[in-house]
Amino acid sequence: MMSEPCGDFGLIGLAVMGQNLILNINDHGYTVVAYNRTVSKVDHFLTHEAKGTNVVGAHSIEELVSKLKRPRKIMLLVKAGSAVDDFIEQIIPHLDQGDIIIDGGNSHFPDTIRRCKYLEGKGFMFIGCGVSGGEDGARYGPSLMPGGTPAAWEHVRPIFQSISAKVNGEPCCDWVGETGSGHYVKMVHNGIEYGDMQLICEAYHLLTEALGLTHEEIGNVFEEWNKKELDSFLIEITKDIVRYKDVDGTPLVLKIKDTAGQKGTGKWTAISSLDLGIPVTLIGEAVFARALSAMKAERVKASKILKGPESSKYTGDKNAFITQLGQALYAAKLISYAQGFMLMREAAKDNNWNLNNAGISLMWRGGCIIRSAFLGDIKNAYTNNPNLENLLFDPFFKNAIDKAQNSWRQIVSNSVLLGIPTPALSTALSFYDGYRHEKLPANLLQAMRDYFGAHTFQYLDECTDETHPRDTFVHTNWTGHGGAVYSTSYQA
Amino acid sequence: MMSEPCGDFGLIGLAVMGQNLILNINDHGYTVVAYNRTVSKVDHFLTHEAKGTNVVGAHSIEELVSKLKRPRKIMLLVKAGSAVDDFIEQIIPHLDQGDIIIDGGNSHFPDTIRRCKYLEGKGFMFIGCGVSGGEDGARYGPSLMPGGTPAAWEHVRPIFQSISAKVNGEPCCDWVGETGSGHYVKMVHNGIEYGDMQLICEAYHLLTEALGLTHEEIGNVFEEWNKKELDSFLIEITKDIVRYKDVDGTPLVLKIKDTAGQKGTGKWTAISSLDLGIPVTLIGEAVFARALSAMKAERVKASKILKGPESSKYTGDKNAFITQLGQALYAAKLISYAQGFMLMREAAKDNNWNLNNAGISLMWRGGCIIRSAFLGDIKNAYTNNPNLENLLFDPFFKNAIDKAQNSWRQIVSNSVLLGIPTPALSTALSFYDGYRHEKLPANLLQAMRDYFGAHTFQYLDECTDETHPRDTFVHTNWTGHGGAVYSTSYQA
Repeated sequence: MMSEPCGDFGLIGLAVMGQNLILNINDHGYTVVAYNRTVSKVDHFLTHEAKGTNVVGAHSIEELVSKLKRPRKIMLLVKAGSAVDDFIEQIIPHLDQGDIIIDGGNSHFPDTIRRCKYLEGKGFMFIGCGVSGGEDGARYGPSLMPGGTPAAWEHVRPIFQSISAKVNGEPCCDWVGETGSGHYVKMVHNGIEYGDMQLICEAYHLLTEALGLTHEEIGNVFEEWNKKELDSFLIEITKDIVRYKDVDGTPLVLKIKDTAGQKGTGKWTAISSLDLGIPVTLIGEAVFARALSAMKAERVKASKILKGPESSKYTGDKNAFITQLGQALYAAKLISYAQGFMLMREAAKDNNWNLNNAGISLMWRGGCIIRSAFLGDIKNAYTNNPNLENLLFDPFFKNAIDKAQNSWRQIVSNSVLLGIPTPALSTALSFYDGYRHEKLPANLLQAMRDYFGAHTFQYLDECTDETHPRDTFVHTNWTGHGGAVYSTSYQA
Repeated sequence: MMSEPCGDFGLIGLAVMGQNLILNINDHGYTVVAYNRTVSKVDHFLTHEAKGTNVVGAHSIEELVSKLKRPRKIMLLVKAGSAVDDFIEQIIPHLDQGDIIIDGGNSHFPDTIRRCKYLEGKGFMFIGCGVSGGEDGARYGPSLMPGGTPAAWEHVRPIFQSISAKVNGEPCCDWVGETGSGHYVKMVHNGIEYGDMQLICEAYHLLTEALGLTHEEIGNVFEEWNKKELDSFLIEITKDIVRYKDVDGTPLVLKIKDTAGQKGTGKWTAISSLDLGIPVTLIGEAVFARALSAMKAERVKASKILKGPESSKYTGDKNAFITQLGQALYAAKLISYAQGFMLMREAAKDNNWNLNNAGISLMWRGGCIIRSAFLGDIKNAYTNNPNLENLLFDPFFKNAIDKAQNSWRQIVSNSVLLGIPTPALSTALSFYDGYRHEKLPANLLQAMRDYFGAHTFQYLDECTDETHPRDTFVHTNWTGHGGAVYSTSYQA
């Protein structure tokens, strides 16, 4: 005999993110039904973290489903990959038409596209929802990026927008778009997070090695930066981190092994940008920087063999350097976001998603790891001009980069001369300079490809004529001994 | 009634590469049987390019197979992808055990791994063979990189080593390794080719924009460079290209549209390096540079909006700049090859391939697009020390980079100040400086990840003690309000 369903929301997966999201939803007056594969964890959660709340436990999928009001909303917060598919298969037999499954893990967007189509084909609804903000975000207000079956949005909107972070009263949660777009946008968020963190690390490296600042002084630099245009969660926590002392009084960060881990979402972003042909160079370099950091043993060996410049100490005015560095950080960060939005634009085109750039900016404005004042400016740019072709064309950002670029060039130039690696600051500048060049040297590259492989080339529009009309591909016999064999559609 | 088989080698696919390889094999005294899906092309080939040769035509797969001596060797030179699988399925019914199928196209290595296992499972042999050298190489001596069923090597070795390019009498063809290793090594070759071409383009860009040289003068620069350590096919053809005049007397290269195409092998290399966690940054930037070049319309628009430095003209000594640029090119190229060999080392580990680095260097030494004197030095490095951990640790190269690095830093620094993009020259230098740093700022990155996501970190080996033993992962409550929820193996 079943009792009347009381649950507003079901959640499967009681690791840290799941537990905290449940407590957050409970705080907002909803009854959450909690389930975990290892069932003992349900009981422990109810008698500990969830004690005194309205959270209800379930000891089986069947029980979970039976306790939920219709249309049921069941969120998975389990390890991305086959566990998601397994749970979906376990849930399906108990569902009714129109019920909603939500995947809140870091699933790869092609999986989400596949699952969305699969579940829609069976008459269910599916949402792939990016969740950012870490432990604290999940507990007190995450950024939520839901995409999938459009009709599902009205059903989850009240819960999602109530538990999400708020900025000036606006929820950091809005509908992203169709099929896998929520997870795609979350993936790009994570890629940008990789980039932001790498940029901060490069600044930290310069402050320590080039300027020789103490960690107290570095804390002050980040504190100052956090008051102006760099105001952001990651700058703020960096201030806390460099000031945090181990029991012996040493800054703890100095004892931490410099080998960065990764969960793959930054890598996915870089791969997607390669696949779509969008030069998201800063995230690419950030992922590679983590890979290089992980080769610690080889670097230790290399450090004893390979030489750099005589000194890595900057001998000029330290305060001027710090000011320039803040500008360089800001300019490079702007490039990274411009690249990220270029990538999402192309992905939307590729997948027929209707993405709302202002909405995305707002979802990232608060709650998530990359939250910042800067994202408010991006939101303004896209609100002012929803069809803005590139963030760099927005007057506010165009002026910001005009103002910053001299400092930025000084920082990169000095880093190069001092032998301190700044791959992200540098690649952003290369991109900026490439992007603003009407002509790049790829004309030579095309000539080379035609020379050795008969790959053909086009004439510049301004050089076309009746012999070489626009948009036609031609081949030149550069050497005069290529024989009578010409390139066809098959290119080796 | 079948006649006695006369064919030594079968070849399917009569596009430019296939035709030229057939003529090359014919020149070396072997009887080639030629087939093409569009059969009229066989007859045209026999009555034109192959007229007067011993090449035999076939008008069906069955006829092709029937005309070959056993064990049959049938090479496919068709478009990579499903066409290869289709032909394999068409050939199989006519084969005998021990016959050999060779895929000479630009197949993606995972496909080659799959096909190799599939055909070996049926009692046949399979070779995935990288072929480089373009039209001319195929005709007069390509670089060949065969990998697959080891027992197949003895059967194809005489033909392959006779038709391949030679350097000092040594064939630029050797056995690469198991399953997909031949196509993997060819893929990395192509990635390196992308990098070399991008580096040359950046040098060309600096010579034109920063120094304002004429194309005659640029031709002289490349001619000089080609006499010393940069001696290579790509430097040589660049000299020819910049000197090549259109009918109106203008250097043709100036009329070519600066939008670079790609066939995907550079992209595959970058993706593989991301997947394997090896920082192959130079190829990554080269692929992205092509992507950026392809966004021509957007760049034209950007060029009218975004500002750079006041002048992009270098005001110092031009000849000194050219000398420095040659050194920068050389150093960056060395980094690119070091990264490529790092990638192959990891791929070999990942796939249980036994790769021979000296052999690979020799295969690339001649015949292929990246052939150069430099590859002779790489071969020497790996011959002197087959277990060399990194090319940069070889004394010859260590000294070369010592000698070049000051020039390299000057060039990158000046490019940054002049606003001329040098993504490949720059990223190589960032890599070099990162690689030779015992400590990178990833300690801060790990602290951030632990702060917001409880991702845990390790202590530096020298900071470990009984409380924090080596190789354990710890989490610190950086803020003091994380609650009683701790990170488990699931990380959101």
